[in-house]
Amino acid sequence: MAKVTFIGLGNMGGPMASNLLKAGHEVTVFDLSKPAVEALVAEGASTADSAKAATQGAECVITMLPAGKHVEAVYLGEDGLLAALPAGTLVIDSSTIAPETSRAVAEAAAAKDLAFIDAPVSGGVGGATAGTLTFICGGEVATYNKARPVLEAMGKNIFHAGPHGAGQVAKICNNMMLAILMAGTSEALALGVKNGLDPAVLSEIMKQSSGGNWALNLYNPWPGVMEGVPASRDYQGGFLVNLMTKDLGLAFDNAVANQASIPMGSLARNLFQLHAGQGNGQLDFSSILRLYKPD
Amino acid sequence: MAKVTFIGLGNMGGPMASNLLKAGHEVTVFDLSKPAVEALVAEGASTADSAKAATQGAECVITMLPAGKHVEAVYLGEDGLLAALPAGTLVIDSSTIAPETSRAVAEAAAAKDLAFIDAPVSGGVGGATAGTLTFICGGEVATYNKARPVLEAMGKNIFHAGPHGAGQVAKICNNMMLAILMAGTSEALALGVKNGLDPAVLSEIMKQSSGGNWALNLYNPWPGVMEGVPASRDYQGGFLVNLMTKDLGLAFDNAVANQASIPMGSLARNLFQLHAGQGNGQLDFSSILRLYKPD
Amino acid sequence: MAKVTFIGLGNMGGPMASNLLKAGHEVTVFDLSKPAVEALVAEGASTADSAKAATQGAECVITMLPAGKHVEAVYLGEDGLLAALPAGTLVIDSSTIAPETSRAVAEAAAAKDLAFIDAPVSGGVGGATAGTLTFICGGEVATYNKARPVLEAMGKNIFHAGPHGAGQVAKICNNMMLAILMAGTSEALALGVKNGLDPAVLSEIMKQSSGGNWALNLYNPWPGVMEGVPASRDYQGGFLVNLMTKDLGLAFDNAVANQASIPMGSLARNLFQLHAGQGNGQLDFSSILRLYKPD
Amino acid sequence: MAKVTFIGLGNMGGPMASNLLKAGHEVTVFDLSKPAVEALVAEGASTADSAKAATQGAECVITMLPAGKHVEAVYLGEDGLLAALPAGTLVIDSSTIAPETSRAVAEAAAAKDLAFIDAPVSGGVGGATAGTLTFICGGEVATYNKARPVLEAMGKNIFHAGPHGAGQVAKICNNMMLAILMAGTSEALALGVKNGLDPAVLSEIMKQSSGGNWALNLYNPWPGVMEGVPASRDYQGGFLVNLMTKDLGLAFDNAVANQASIPMGSLARNLFQLHAGQGNGQLDFSSILRLYKPD
Repeated sequence: MAKVTFIGLGNMGGPMASNLLKAGHEVTVFDLSKPAVEALVAEGASTADSAKAATQGAECVITMLPAGKHVEAVYLGEDGLLAALPAGTLVIDSSTIAPETSRAVAEAAAAKDLAFIDAPVSGGVGGATAGTLTFICGGEVATYNKARPVLEAMGKNIFHAGPHGAGQVAKICNNMMLAILMAGTSEALALGVKNGLDPAVLSEIMKQSSGGNWALNLYNPWPGVMEGVPASRDYQGGFLVNLMTKDLGLAFDNAVANQASIPMGSLARNLFQLHAGQGNGQLDFSSILRLYKPD
Repeated sequence: MAKVTFIGLGNMGGPMASNLLKAGHEVTVFDLSKPAVEALVAEGASTADSAKAATQGAECVITMLPAGKHVEAVYLGEDGLLAALPAGTLVIDSSTIAPETSRAVAEAAAAKDLAFIDAPVSGGVGGATAGTLTFICGGEVATYNKARPVLEAMGKNIFHAGPHGAGQVAKICNNMMLAILMAGTSEALALGVKNGLDPAVLSEIMKQSSGGNWALNLYNPWPGVMEGVPASRDYQGGFLVNLMTKDLGLAFDNAVANQASIPMGSLARNLFQLHAGQGNGQLDFSSILRLYKPD
Repeated sequence: MAKVTFIGLGNMGGPMASNLLKAGHEVTVFDLSKPAVEALVAEGASTADSAKAATQGAECVITMLPAGKHVEAVYLGEDGLLAALPAGTLVIDSSTIAPETSRAVAEAAAAKDLAFIDAPVSGGVGGATAGTLTFICGGEVATYNKARPVLEAMGKNIFHAGPHGAGQVAKICNNMMLAILMAGTSEALALGVKNGLDPAVLSEIMKQSSGGNWALNLYNPWPGVMEGVPASRDYQGGFLVNLMTKDLGLAFDNAVANQASIPMGSLARNLFQLHAGQGNGQLDFSSILRLYKPD
Repeated sequence: MAKVTFIGLGNMGGPMASNLLKAGHEVTVFDLSKPAVEALVAEGASTADSAKAATQGAECVITMLPAGKHVEAVYLGEDGLLAALPAGTLVIDSSTIAPETSRAVAEAAAAKDLAFIDAPVSGGVGGATAGTLTFICGGEVATYNKARPVLEAMGKNIFHAGPHGAGQVAKICNNMMLAILMAGTSEALALGVKNGLDPAVLSEIMKQSSGGNWALNLYNPWPGVMEGVPASRDYQGGFLVNLMTKDLGLAFDNAVANQASIPMGSLARNLFQLHAGQGNGQLDFSSILRLYKPD
């Protein structure tokens, strides 16, 4: 068991830190939100007055932050954590950010002999709570192997995608694919229903045919077809449209930086953005169905 | 076992008729291509001088034709089969055509007291040969139940999608979804590779995450990632780009007729059409990857 | 001056027939709507009990009908006008329909020695009323030359696009372009405004730069930027979203029939269809701006 | 007449500096390329060993650089020009870069009491040479008025788009519109030609109808339709595909930063990127026609 410092106790970070505690790690937490910190302290975590103070004595530091600028602010610069951590510390950033930012942090970490990996997650709040997240890691294999035991307390599938930044890249590709799956599934179901088909029957047929995909099989966007998914509770909870558009924004920026063509992903991004612009940003992303099927 | 007449012995129809013979049915075949007919006769089928003559005494007539105009020509009009068949004959059209055409044939069949269903297939030449096709049926339940035993000689999954034409609609929706999956998967993999990722590693990660889908999981478009798929034999064989664009054309026409929005499916159709226009119509449809990754 | 029969007195046909009267032609009208007929009779037109009766003695027959099926019903078959008209009659169809339908009518007309052209219009109700329509004609040059004097009573620009059906094709291409211009202009203005720019200033800059186009220059979709356009009267009147989606449906069908790639036009069609599906079908098509800028 | 320092003597900057000389300004130039500097010196310009040295005594500094990072490198930081220039100097950046970068430079300039505007251009090498560029300026009106006389030596239309960065935003919007116009025009012409129409006839019809736009009217992409445009010289010269994709990349980044939906612009960007990826980056951007009409 390790001494772990966890920074960033939001919807995802909170339950992740909680699972570290349950697994027996010695966890120190930090967040600007007092209640978020107190909840973890109530579960047995320690805390400190600042991020830097919270990392004192840590063997492993994990961050889970909203965007690249927060990651830069926490790690880089004269006041950043990298300047303060002792050589050899394992540093894991699970935020979903641009690969270039991950690479910049990785370089700065290497200069200090710190062992850094980017390890963004997939699986949402549900996966964070259940401890079944997927971690997609970028960095050296040795570091990845060192990080695995810690990550296993919070997730089920732990992948090594490639060198630094590769975790972010794979996450971007996967979530772009997911957006395509959800928009495409919504569209195919809506087309069938416009023709008089039953959405449940059509779903079943496509599931067992070549139209099968994660969104259709496990997260059906049509209300009432599948139990326990956001579509069956008015698209409350789940993975918010606003978070999907954030991830698709990373795909846009990445495609520009790499001169890549992403016509399908770009269209999906714009459909989700139109949908967000019509006031649906706080709904689950499967609510994209409503673009096709206004009530 | 039934007396079955099979009309249309192309790449799909030939092996389908062959499987009917293997299952012990008494099969009479007809096609304008002599060699196609002779191949089946060599396997034990009977034949006749015309489609009409071939259906004499048949309990069940199955057609597998390239397009709606062929289906209309075979069934409708004074010289069509519907005018000649005795009441009660089971009539199955497995061609992929517009739902409206299926409905028109169904109506004409009903007027003659014939039991008609549309039963387009999915699974390609491989499925036709292996007898593992998926049949997606539209028509009355009683007719569907009557047709099942015959269809089971040729396929594995036999779905009832709804009333007449519903088989075609479900096929159109499924294949539009498939086009979206293949274009999207190609794009996501190409984006990852542009970023330096290994396509096999990225495929594995997405397969086990929320990007999983039929195209990625079973028909990977990146050469060398998966054995036995068209991508690993220069996109030879499989499901041709030209056939995918044909099916997507049916989706276009259907969306216009039903005032449905299909932005993702339309983009996929146009990408496949651009690809076909660049001389790739005779390649497997997973070659759409080449649009993203010119060699 | 000629004896002209005008069939189809809708929003477009009514003012067109009116302009024929004003130009001094002897006009007989027919429509299933009594009030539409009476309005023209009050202006000096004759009428009759049926389309066929209305064409007796006509040197020229003009039709302006909603869709291809109406054109087929009026002209073709044993009861159709083509069977009844004397050889040499000039027949002009100004409906916007599929080129194939125009060609079918043209062939049937040729078999009866009738001089037929397809002559769809652009310019909307405003142009129909002002007599400034654009006619885009398909057919033989001799017929086009014969038709010109009659068309000049209703329009300003009279183009010869090519053989039969070419008028329809050019109309389809032009209106697809127009849809692209309007969606693109709306999008560019909305992007600028999101960045804090004044839509009028940005419009002026683009107008005088390489972004200039018919929609921006003459039909600005942003409320308040231009006087006298639908955007400045809550998108009332003008060219309805539902008519634009109809024309874009013709483009879809045409692209399928000709295996053409139309990614930009397809996306525009789907955006207009989404907009129509959200209850905006009866607004002017420049209201597509609202998709980008929800109030 | 003013003492002007011009930095960045590429395809655009060279002729721009040349026009300043012709207008009688006292011009000092700087570029890392020796031949570029020598060409201007031969026309009467002075030069210096460094950018900073070149600005000594300047009343006005103009930069024309490839990308945002060059602009940042030249102006910002301890060694940047802003730190060296005396208060009150007029500083004009004509590079096409992200609005945020322009705003950052503007802020730093304001802190030094320098009068800065962003003034990206449109009109290409032809406009730069002829002195007919369009300048789209962002910044305070007083600065804009001060800059006008200098800009008029190089351009014809000088717009004030709004506050700092607004010049860049308007340029981005305009060029996104232009990409949509060129892709759309190519597509509409290709559709007509697939139907057998003459591209010149169709161009003429659309030009005089509601399909008229800058690309169609002044820069027809179909070879042979219009003289003197890149399409009639194998797409050599003009505005390169690679530059268009660069500008569309700025639109992507801007849409992400502003949560704007740009479906049409995104599709255009991806089509141009596909086209560039197939080896056409060095052709004029009207060569996008070839995507629709492979030879």
